[in-house]
Amino acid sequence: MLVVKKFGGTSVADKERIFNVARRCIEEYQKGNDVVVVLSAMGKYTDELITMAKDINELPPKREMDMLFTIGEQMSVALMAMAMNKLGVPAISLNAFQVAMHSTSVYGNARLKRIDTERIRHELEQRKIVIVTGFQGINKYDDYTTLGRGGSDTTAVALAAALHADACEIYTDVDGVYTADPRKVKTARKLDAVTYDEMLELATLGAGVLHNRSVELAKKYGVQLVVRSSLNTSEGTIVKEGAKMEKMLVSGVAGDIDTARVAVVGLKDEPGVAFKLFNALAKHNINVDMILQSIGRKGTKDISFTTSDENADEAAKIINENFNNFESVEVDKKVAKVSIVGAGMQTNAGVAAKMFEALYDANINIRMISTSEIRVTVLIDEANTERAMNAIHDKFDLGNK
Amino acid sequence: MLVVKKFGGTSVADKERIFNVARRCIEEYQKGNDVVVVLSAMGKYTDELITMAKDINELPPKREMDMLFTIGEQMSVALMAMAMNKLGVPAISLNAFQVAMHSTSVYGNARLKRIDTERIRHELEQRKIVIVTGFQGINKYDDYTTLGRGGSDTTAVALAAALHADACEIYTDVDGVYTADPRKVKTARKLDAVTYDEMLELATLGAGVLHNRSVELAKKYGVQLVVRSSLNTSEGTIVKEGAKMEKMLVSGVAGDIDTARVAVVGLKDEPGVAFKLFNALAKHNINVDMILQSIGRKGTKDISFTTSDENADEAAKIINENFNNFESVEVDKKVAKVSIVGAGMQTNAGVAAKMFEALYDANINIRMISTSEIRVTVLIDEANTERAMNAIHDKFDLGNK
Repeated sequence: MLVVKKFGGTSVADKERIFNVARRCIEEYQKGNDVVVVLSAMGKYTDELITMAKDINELPPKREMDMLFTIGEQMSVALMAMAMNKLGVPAISLNAFQVAMHSTSVYGNARLKRIDTERIRHELEQRKIVIVTGFQGINKYDDYTTLGRGGSDTTAVALAAALHADACEIYTDVDGVYTADPRKVKTARKLDAVTYDEMLELATLGAGVLHNRSVELAKKYGVQLVVRSSLNTSEGTIVKEGAKMEKMLVSGVAGDIDTARVAVVGLKDEPGVAFKLFNALAKHNINVDMILQSIGRKGTKDISFTTSDENADEAAKIINENFNNFESVEVDKKVAKVSIVGAGMQTNAGVAAKMFEALYDANINIRMISTSEIRVTVLIDEANTERAMNAIHDKFDLGNK
Repeated sequence: MLVVKKFGGTSVADKERIFNVARRCIEEYQKGNDVVVVLSAMGKYTDELITMAKDINELPPKREMDMLFTIGEQMSVALMAMAMNKLGVPAISLNAFQVAMHSTSVYGNARLKRIDTERIRHELEQRKIVIVTGFQGINKYDDYTTLGRGGSDTTAVALAAALHADACEIYTDVDGVYTADPRKVKTARKLDAVTYDEMLELATLGAGVLHNRSVELAKKYGVQLVVRSSLNTSEGTIVKEGAKMEKMLVSGVAGDIDTARVAVVGLKDEPGVAFKLFNALAKHNINVDMILQSIGRKGTKDISFTTSDENADEAAKIINENFNNFESVEVDKKVAKVSIVGAGMQTNAGVAAKMFEALYDANINIRMISTSEIRVTVLIDEANTERAMNAIHDKFDLGNK
């Protein structure tokens, strides 16, 4: 059996944790399995590198930033190989050049295109544990790239796909995927399994323990994932196709306070006005989430949308600079998204209504609504986030299996 | 004109120094020259990496140690590229994979075999300053190697040879090559030029600002070197063939206290006894320097040799374990080598005698003597080192041109 195990920065933050991870991998190896380990940079080391770079150049070239970033993972993998060797097990570390992790050219946000497996297979055949740098690739210019946020998850999934691994385990500092954030909802319960689509919605909502792109990739190549804790040996949550074992309508509740509402008020009702507005935002890489259009006064209309807190002011600036056919732009950062996600929704009516009822009972005002096939999201005042999550969690009785 | 400039760890130890180096390189670039910069790891970062590794595994695999080491130079080059970009000049950093610095396979002590110049030339054609990681190579397994002590000097010289550079400048924290260590001999004077052979002898004696292998390589490929300070703009010392501009008998005095004397007393006088002794030491990688053989009592002989302080006890142990045809082995670490070096010696008699006279006048006892065509070395008590250096320096009037 070939197992890919991915450990995040927290799991390798110091000597003790490095040895914990090493022992965990060796346990798998001693069962006779082939083990490929993917690591992130230690603890907050990537942040330290950013600080170091910004001190020299507040706008460092992205190509050089990636050159600097990649040393973080290379440090982790080399130290891990030393730890495993210390424990008497042959191990070898490999970086993106050595594996040959081919990616697209975009620095800071590349996508993996193709992974050569020859070197890894060669090392596995020598019965070595192979430790691979997460987060990094090489592009057609022979330059380092990095894969963006959560990139090491993507590395692990891509490796599992390329190697036809029997299992891909993503180790984090939580036990698995929960019905809601346990810090906010006390009755939150760990799920045994979720589908790729559910995981994707949860990831998009900022509630996920996995990054979006890694889940997309896992779905595309049918890589079965397990999300589990690096601190204990509990079973974790399986992410796979049609994982409706629990036959639940709703599998989880997520809250995201990193949301702002931008309202364009009194927009003249001309053809293509919405298109032009969102086109201008897209050109500046402003991701827009929920959109609401309503009739305003005197033949005008109001368009509201949500975006991240970080992008809200820039969005307002872009609108002010590019358009003059409206009365005002208002930004409100004190809002939050609360969502329910569940593959069971697709075939069951009334799920959204039940959610709205929960909020009504809790006297929480809904400002916007957005839905997908397996998700319902509402925008509410930020102050009500935890109360809303608990009310919905209780209403759907998610704390009980 | 194509110029290769090498800066050591001290020269890039912090932000301010990084910008100093950046400005210095940009000055050259703005004359219209092509500039290739070779950097070491920042300050004591390599030592920090060793500490980090030893904390995890006191005997880390050398292959993984090199994997860890190489991040030091990669950090330097990325930050330097950011600094130059900040100053408005296009620059790009390259590591051993990107350049393709092919080396032998030995981890920790590899030799460069071949350097591909395509990528560097391509970047130079785009009028970029190219910043290359010193000290590192890749071997036939596609693994990182490091070049051992002073490896970045070797990288610079090898690059200058491969690129047919017009100049190769080695920047250090001293002004150039001196007639003696200025901290020990107050009248020491900077030399305008030395030959490769003189530099080699000085390097071997531990007095050199350049590492041995880099000088050998420079001699082999006829790369003219300049050793100069990164802190000021003084001219430095040129290292080149037949650089006897000053027609000096003796160009410098060097002292080395990292020397120990090992004496094997009362060795039975059998055929091949010396061969067997030094063969056993060589097998354990013990480098032996000066050798003295003398007649002992009752048909025995005494063999004394010098080695580094670090190796002395191991040498004694090896002799005790492998031989039983002697009376005793004595180790004395309180000795030092003092040498004079000069290409002019080859054709002038009496140089050694003048040195011995200086020591006799100073009442310093000579314990061993060793000579080459352009060097005379004596072993004396460590306590007399500086006094001996000054006496010789004065005798040859090296402080005056």
